[in-house]
Amino acid sequence: MSEREQSSGAVALLRERLASGRLLPVRRALHALNPAEIANLLESLPPRQRKVVWEMVSPEDDGEVLLHLGDDVRTALMRQMDVHELVAAAEELDIDDLADFVEHLPETVTQQVLKALDADDRARLEAVLAYEPDTAGGLMNTDTVTVRPDVTLDVVQRYLRLRGELPAHTDALFVVDRYSHYLGALPLDRILTRGADELVSGVMARERDVLKASLSEERVAKQFEDADLVSAAVVDDRNVLVGRITIDDVVDVIRRDAEHKLMSLAGLDEDEDIFAPVRGAARRRAVWLGINLLTAFFASSVVDLFQGSISKVVALAVLMPVVASMGGIGGSQTLTLMIRSLALGQIGSHNWRFLLRKELAVALINGVLWALVVGAVSWWWFASPMLALVVGLAIVINQTIAALAGIFVPLTLHKFGVDPALAGSVILTTFTDVCGFFSLLALGTLILL
Amino acid sequence: MSEREQSSGAVALLRERLASGRLLPVRRALHALNPAEIANLLESLPPRQRKVVWEMVSPEDDGEVLLHLGDDVRTALMRQMDVHELVAAAEELDIDDLADFVEHLPETVTQQVLKALDADDRARLEAVLAYEPDTAGGLMNTDTVTVRPDVTLDVVQRYLRLRGELPAHTDALFVVDRYSHYLGALPLDRILTRGADELVSGVMARERDVLKASLSEERVAKQFEDADLVSAAVVDDRNVLVGRITIDDVVDVIRRDAEHKLMSLAGLDEDEDIFAPVRGAARRRAVWLGINLLTAFFASSVVDLFQGSISKVVALAVLMPVVASMGGIGGSQTLTLMIRSLALGQIGSHNWRFLLRKELAVALINGVLWALVVGAVSWWWFASPMLALVVGLAIVINQTIAALAGIFVPLTLHKFGVDPALAGSVILTTFTDVCGFFSLLALGTLILL
Repeated sequence: MSEREQSSGAVALLRERLASGRLLPVRRALHALNPAEIANLLESLPPRQRKVVWEMVSPEDDGEVLLHLGDDVRTALMRQMDVHELVAAAEELDIDDLADFVEHLPETVTQQVLKALDADDRARLEAVLAYEPDTAGGLMNTDTVTVRPDVTLDVVQRYLRLRGELPAHTDALFVVDRYSHYLGALPLDRILTRGADELVSGVMARERDVLKASLSEERVAKQFEDADLVSAAVVDDRNVLVGRITIDDVVDVIRRDAEHKLMSLAGLDEDEDIFAPVRGAARRRAVWLGINLLTAFFASSVVDLFQGSISKVVALAVLMPVVASMGGIGGSQTLTLMIRSLALGQIGSHNWRFLLRKELAVALINGVLWALVVGAVSWWWFASPMLALVVGLAIVINQTIAALAGIFVPLTLHKFGVDPALAGSVILTTFTDVCGFFSLLALGTLILL
Repeated sequence: MSEREQSSGAVALLRERLASGRLLPVRRALHALNPAEIANLLESLPPRQRKVVWEMVSPEDDGEVLLHLGDDVRTALMRQMDVHELVAAAEELDIDDLADFVEHLPETVTQQVLKALDADDRARLEAVLAYEPDTAGGLMNTDTVTVRPDVTLDVVQRYLRLRGELPAHTDALFVVDRYSHYLGALPLDRILTRGADELVSGVMARERDVLKASLSEERVAKQFEDADLVSAAVVDDRNVLVGRITIDDVVDVIRRDAEHKLMSLAGLDEDEDIFAPVRGAARRRAVWLGINLLTAFFASSVVDLFQGSISKVVALAVLMPVVASMGGIGGSQTLTLMIRSLALGQIGSHNWRFLLRKELAVALINGVLWALVVGAVSWWWFASPMLALVVGLAIVINQTIAALAGIFVPLTLHKFGVDPALAGSVILTTFTDVCGFFSLLALGTLILL
């Protein structure tokens, strides 16, 4: 704990010192932080201070710190490094991290990094790079410790004493035959608690989860979560052990996936640097604003159809935002529920009809309830019972359409392989705006004029 | 892999069989799933089928399956169980899971569960229950294995052989003095790789992270992520070892926290059952719709002020949605960035001014850009250069206000301890709607009339 308090104290101290410009003690405070904490600190600093702190990070931490940064901040910092520094940073990394790292390097630097590795490490790195980065193969490390099934635990233990330190997060050795085919796992605690003369084959866990190298990283994360794994073997199509995945990398996948959903809903990139240069940030967000503008003009053109009605009953213009926004909120609730459930794989052909009926029922109940409230308020406000009827009907219609859109928009996007979190909310609010305006103004024209 | 394929095959099979009503093979398929997978399956089933499957879950899995369910589904299923079944389910759980479980039990059942435990387990459970559920103490398990510093590794190993199986996710034993004060951790791999005659005190890791029992679960998760921990000791205020936290529980915290953010933004509860009874779901969502309605009426009342202007220049009503929605999108982008950064602890007094300047600059650039576009379109559409000027100015003003609201709304909520993900978006869009309508209509009144 004291160490921990020290290190979060160090961050506060660092910020204070950076603000005051007294830099001498900052370097020492920085050494108390682990790479993830340094990365978090760097992300929270405006560019000028970020540069100052980055230059103080010890070279052996450079690689790991870079890996913990979002894409944008990493790219900016790497642009300031020369080839020699990049190669040095790469050399400090584990193979799985290195595979991530070289993805972000220019081709020429990658060649330099490969040259700097010894033949073994190069072969290992190439093995990982052969897989897509977002699969089990791309996520894995190659630092497996293997034993044969026909030796005793005593022999295993003597081997381990000779070998010395195990790779981080090793909770099990892997048992393979002479052709490296995966046979099972030998958890460390079994080596310690079972008899020294027992055979590995009798002690090993055969039923432990093992991952195909081609498995997507989302599936890997799900499997780790569901089976409470700390590490799992990765095998290729012929059941040959090629590496292992550890929980720390899976936690990163889970966190990144969650950030992706949150940020996508606002049309942002999850790697966005909060202190990104204004020009780049403005350009990226402009895309989303532009898409939204098209849909807003579409909604406006619906209003435009009813200019005559509005000029006669201006109260319709006053009530337009109410109908549209209630539909937007109702639809977003259904949409968010769908996004979560689709991500968890809980929605399929067997249950979406049930879900549709339920969401429609919820929308109808709330539609009627709030139609009565809005109708009553409008009656009192504009002294017109017919206007109250119009706005009430419009709300019921729009809430119903919002529920339909909340179900079918994400289902359709999902079917075509588009992430519903990314495009869902813009499409949905287009529906609810257009239908809200249309139902209010068309009913108004029919009933009031 | 084959096991895994089997089990996801089992889920598909189960659904198919459930749909067709042929239930005999379902029970066997169900046994191939782990509790988390069964919970996920249950959540994806409509209530009637859910009940059928739930009755087929083996009693020894009941407790763990219930813990993996969202609050709503769990409560519904527990309501169908009698006291005897609940006590039986509880008996199968680890202490940390049991502590979670009893929170959801009626008081009378809790007493029965406590009675069914032996004295040791009861004392352990009461130790965990003494802490708030969302702290390290509430999250911990009490199944620590401890050794003394003054024995050799050989003695440790003989002790472990006698003891037999270790608790799940044990990657280290803890070293304590005779008063149970925490001294350090003895990782299993060190026991295996270091000399048998070395003393525990010489081999143990003193620098390993240790958590105060009062630490919040968000901080616990952050620490696990930053330091790539698999397990960590939990100590009380006097440095007495009281338990340990393992990564699987931390992964649950991370996942739940991410879901909470996503669902809160739409005014939903992260525990919401997608197949919740219509009445309950409608009631809960009505609250959010009601809050939104108040803010929508507020925006409408701004429009109401300018009825005279609208009846003369109906084009203003047509352009209202454009100005408001562009502001809403721009503000949401800033808000989402702030929500993420506040959650990561990256925003503080040292950098919010810098962030404000940057977001204002981004908003101004995009404001001017899209003002030109919207102005040009409006000029062409309504053949009025002055209307183009009005709508362009309104967009620049509203984008600026959106950026200000995107920064200050979450900062203020955070300061008062309110989760910005929960209330942020409603407050923000109220700002952007009200200011959008006001700027457009007030400028229109001044310039066009």
